[in-house]
Amino acid sequence: MSTTMGPEKPPKPVDLSHHLSELSKARGISPLKGLQKYFGRPGLITLAGGFPSPAYFPLADITVNALIPESFALVPAPHPPSSLSWFWKLFGTDKAKERTSSVTIPKYPTLPGDVKLAVCLQYSEAVAQGQLQEFLRHFVSKVYQPLIEDHSILIDTGNTDGWNRAVMMLCNPGEGVLCEEWTFPTAVASMLPSNIQPVPIAMDGLGLRSDDLERVLSTWDADARQMSRPHVMYIIPVGQNPSGSTMSTERKKQIYDICCKYDVVIVEDDPYYFLQMNDYVPKHKRSPEQATDAKHFLASLSPSFLRFDHESRVIRLDTFSKTIAPGSRLGWFTCNSMFAERLQRQGEISTQAPCGFGQSIVTKILLNWTYDGYIRWLRGLRTEYTQRRDFIIDCFSEEFNLQIGPPTTAVWSGCTTYHAALKQAGVHNGKHPFQGRTMFSLVPPVAGMFLWASYIKLHLDQHPSYTPEREETLEMQLFVQLAEDGVIAAPGWVFSAAAMAGSGDETPGHFRISFSLAEFSDLQKAVKIFERVLRKFFEEQS
Amino acid sequence: MSTTMGPEKPPKPVDLSHHLSELSKARGISPLKGLQKYFGRPGLITLAGGFPSPAYFPLADITVNALIPESFALVPAPHPPSSLSWFWKLFGTDKAKERTSSVTIPKYPTLPGDVKLAVCLQYSEAVAQGQLQEFLRHFVSKVYQPLIEDHSILIDTGNTDGWNRAVMMLCNPGEGVLCEEWTFPTAVASMLPSNIQPVPIAMDGLGLRSDDLERVLSTWDADARQMSRPHVMYIIPVGQNPSGSTMSTERKKQIYDICCKYDVVIVEDDPYYFLQMNDYVPKHKRSPEQATDAKHFLASLSPSFLRFDHESRVIRLDTFSKTIAPGSRLGWFTCNSMFAERLQRQGEISTQAPCGFGQSIVTKILLNWTYDGYIRWLRGLRTEYTQRRDFIIDCFSEEFNLQIGPPTTAVWSGCTTYHAALKQAGVHNGKHPFQGRTMFSLVPPVAGMFLWASYIKLHLDQHPSYTPEREETLEMQLFVQLAEDGVIAAPGWVFSAAAMAGSGDETPGHFRISFSLAEFSDLQKAVKIFERVLRKFFEEQS
Repeated sequence: MSTTMGPEKPPKPVDLSHHLSELSKARGISPLKGLQKYFGRPGLITLAGGFPSPAYFPLADITVNALIPESFALVPAPHPPSSLSWFWKLFGTDKAKERTSSVTIPKYPTLPGDVKLAVCLQYSEAVAQGQLQEFLRHFVSKVYQPLIEDHSILIDTGNTDGWNRAVMMLCNPGEGVLCEEWTFPTAVASMLPSNIQPVPIAMDGLGLRSDDLERVLSTWDADARQMSRPHVMYIIPVGQNPSGSTMSTERKKQIYDICCKYDVVIVEDDPYYFLQMNDYVPKHKRSPEQATDAKHFLASLSPSFLRFDHESRVIRLDTFSKTIAPGSRLGWFTCNSMFAERLQRQGEISTQAPCGFGQSIVTKILLNWTYDGYIRWLRGLRTEYTQRRDFIIDCFSEEFNLQIGPPTTAVWSGCTTYHAALKQAGVHNGKHPFQGRTMFSLVPPVAGMFLWASYIKLHLDQHPSYTPEREETLEMQLFVQLAEDGVIAAPGWVFSAAAMAGSGDETPGHFRISFSLAEFSDLQKAVKIFERVLRKFFEEQS
Repeated sequence: MSTTMGPEKPPKPVDLSHHLSELSKARGISPLKGLQKYFGRPGLITLAGGFPSPAYFPLADITVNALIPESFALVPAPHPPSSLSWFWKLFGTDKAKERTSSVTIPKYPTLPGDVKLAVCLQYSEAVAQGQLQEFLRHFVSKVYQPLIEDHSILIDTGNTDGWNRAVMMLCNPGEGVLCEEWTFPTAVASMLPSNIQPVPIAMDGLGLRSDDLERVLSTWDADARQMSRPHVMYIIPVGQNPSGSTMSTERKKQIYDICCKYDVVIVEDDPYYFLQMNDYVPKHKRSPEQATDAKHFLASLSPSFLRFDHESRVIRLDTFSKTIAPGSRLGWFTCNSMFAERLQRQGEISTQAPCGFGQSIVTKILLNWTYDGYIRWLRGLRTEYTQRRDFIIDCFSEEFNLQIGPPTTAVWSGCTTYHAALKQAGVHNGKHPFQGRTMFSLVPPVAGMFLWASYIKLHLDQHPSYTPEREETLEMQLFVQLAEDGVIAAPGWVFSAAAMAGSGDETPGHFRISFSLAEFSDLQKAVKIFERVLRKFFEEQS
């Protein structure tokens, strides 16, 4: 089966209605039969809904001082930290270095078509406000270029809500969902209560492996598994959580074709899409980067599954959590119109439309920035995250001997793997018993917020008190010691799909470090603490 | 069984854990085992979560011009419309008559403990921001005075979300939920997809009837019904939607006692609580009102079920939709801590914490107003709705002959019922064939937004072309004719619990008019249109 990215007219989408769950088939709110066509008619007086008068909304207007799209540089600064957050924290009222632009959202704007609080704060259908819907439609069509033209865009309160609704729409109790072997725990937590089980697929340096996917689906034995062959996939293709892996175009095409062959709906959870970076280059080899323009930036991004989706079997989940703020609680589905209609019905009986304060503020900022400005903002963010990734690996390089070597697990095949050995002497000033030996390994990610996630493999089998039975206990001791000394990292076991399903080990020997939040000075301090704790931990028990 | 509102120590709550659904028992996110105690320690560097740095939130600050708590008068104005909304619409930029106070929410406030955008816009637990949680706790304890002291308060995205989560927590497929015979359609739409059926209980002028509740529960035949005896009740006790009825303290106590006897959890959906009013007095008999103070206002409100809840079996749903704005998408549960913990887990896999823009703005307005200011705001709102209720009934009184008479249905027993007859001649200028005969009846509500909802009974059996079979068709013709002439009202049948369950007629002959939204001039116009359409409709087919 071949896929196309060319301009030829795509074939008609296949009928996917057999994928709707029992829950989804039944779900729906009775419309006011025969009267709906009248809504919105000019001059109509509606006494139908329980809507308060906007006169009783206690807001005259909201004014936002928003950063300008050019707030962050397009190439990494030679000397980080460039983030100004430490500066703002110290001098909260001194805005000397912030460049902002002010936008106001009045209850009743004088300009027709302007964002209007009286509307945004009222009840509405469980869809986006008009201007936001229009912005998203334009954005999706320019940036993701879906192959099928009549895709629908439906707002939600972020990707957690999005995935939860997708599960309810697509899955019946007792079914399975294909996912990466390491995955986002909350996504699995949405499924388990309804007895919908994760079906882990092996990963490599590019994320979910197409060969393992084909193997699992082609050899599926429903009787032995006591589960029908899965028809839904949950996948985080870019800056994968927790592994940090990013999928190539070729791999995506292979996976898409397999999903067509076995009639699988793909739910593409892609919050880190705009945090794609160039490869990590060690500090001493790094040369000043040249800024790329918007066109080249967009062309450099791994294409969404939407780009190949000639059968309309992709539900893409986008969010403003990583590009504006998590507290926006704003995201959106891009999918076929049948799915969108069912997902909207689910919104009507749960969240309704996302918060009007959030919608109006985000919309107004985006409209003020314009599409081009938002792309500029995203390019700046990408640079910031590049700088953060580079900085933390540079810190590891300062504290440890980092050497490139062969990948030590299948998950890293094809990746440039760094092995870290102790540089300094033991805490008791003698030669450390592990001097010169690899203590952990890592792979620099090319997208997202996470360092190697499970890619940092603690070589606990090197620990003097190691026995396979003691492994988890030992690892937990290390995490506790790190926390005691002031650093919290996420243990790898919480991301194991098999462990979450209760069908596998908790797989010790991994953890995930996120470089997205801490100040640069804290990142540096954390790596120093990590080195000291690790050195002491392995020495004291030897 | 006796209930108490006195100061004596309440008995220990009963164990309600057997009410948790299968879904709820399983639902939960794995914590970072053994590491949670370290979170929040001063100086801790956390590299655990996928949190973006607040430096990347593109907001320096948000400034809100909020109406002052005294914006609306405490007694009805002698000459409505007093609402300024028409004024603002026409002269959006002229703020001469608006009294506002400005509040600013900076990303990094200089005052410690101030509302902080850097925190509100970040990921958080699925709970309220600290200052909001504190405000709500104080508010609930002062206003509702829950009998059990250790009640929990948990934020949600409004009562639709709240009820949906309560259903998931309490009900398994195949079970039933006790509810008013006329009820909020969205509440039933949340249940039906999971095969959870409404079990309608008869109503009277005070809402759900305790005698019918006792009858249904005491005579429950699980085999005949193919359903176990319901253990959950959904109830809208104040300004009921759609009927407008408001429950007395005595009735609430009776219902609470029956729910204890049959081990039923009460979910009290109470969005109209603060829109409680005095009785309607015809215009010509109305005398100027005296404003009551805050203490008397609160004492005048029908007590929440929380007030009697010695067994912790009440889940109260509150919302800012009717008191701030629907677009806030902010509400909260008040319930026992076991329920609250399960409901929080559900939030973690769906909405997460409600929108940070909404939370920070609503919080900042409330803190600026203070508790006393918010109570003042609510007293003003109550007066506005009183004025709106009085105004629309006055309009009916101008267009029709309104006469007090005996209630015409069981639902109205105990209520002052107004019967409306045509005042004017027929459209063809002759005497109307229905001149002097009751064409519809209504009961003025003492709370909420709705005029008698199903209490307006269209006496379609008076229509010349009436046959029982034609009734719905005839009624639909009338609604279409009204819409054609510019007025939309909500047909009663959409609120029938029996009809939604597929187990009853669609019960024509009712509709719900909300007087909450339209301008006063439009309310007046709508009633004139209603009179004209009704007159014509009955004349033309005679």
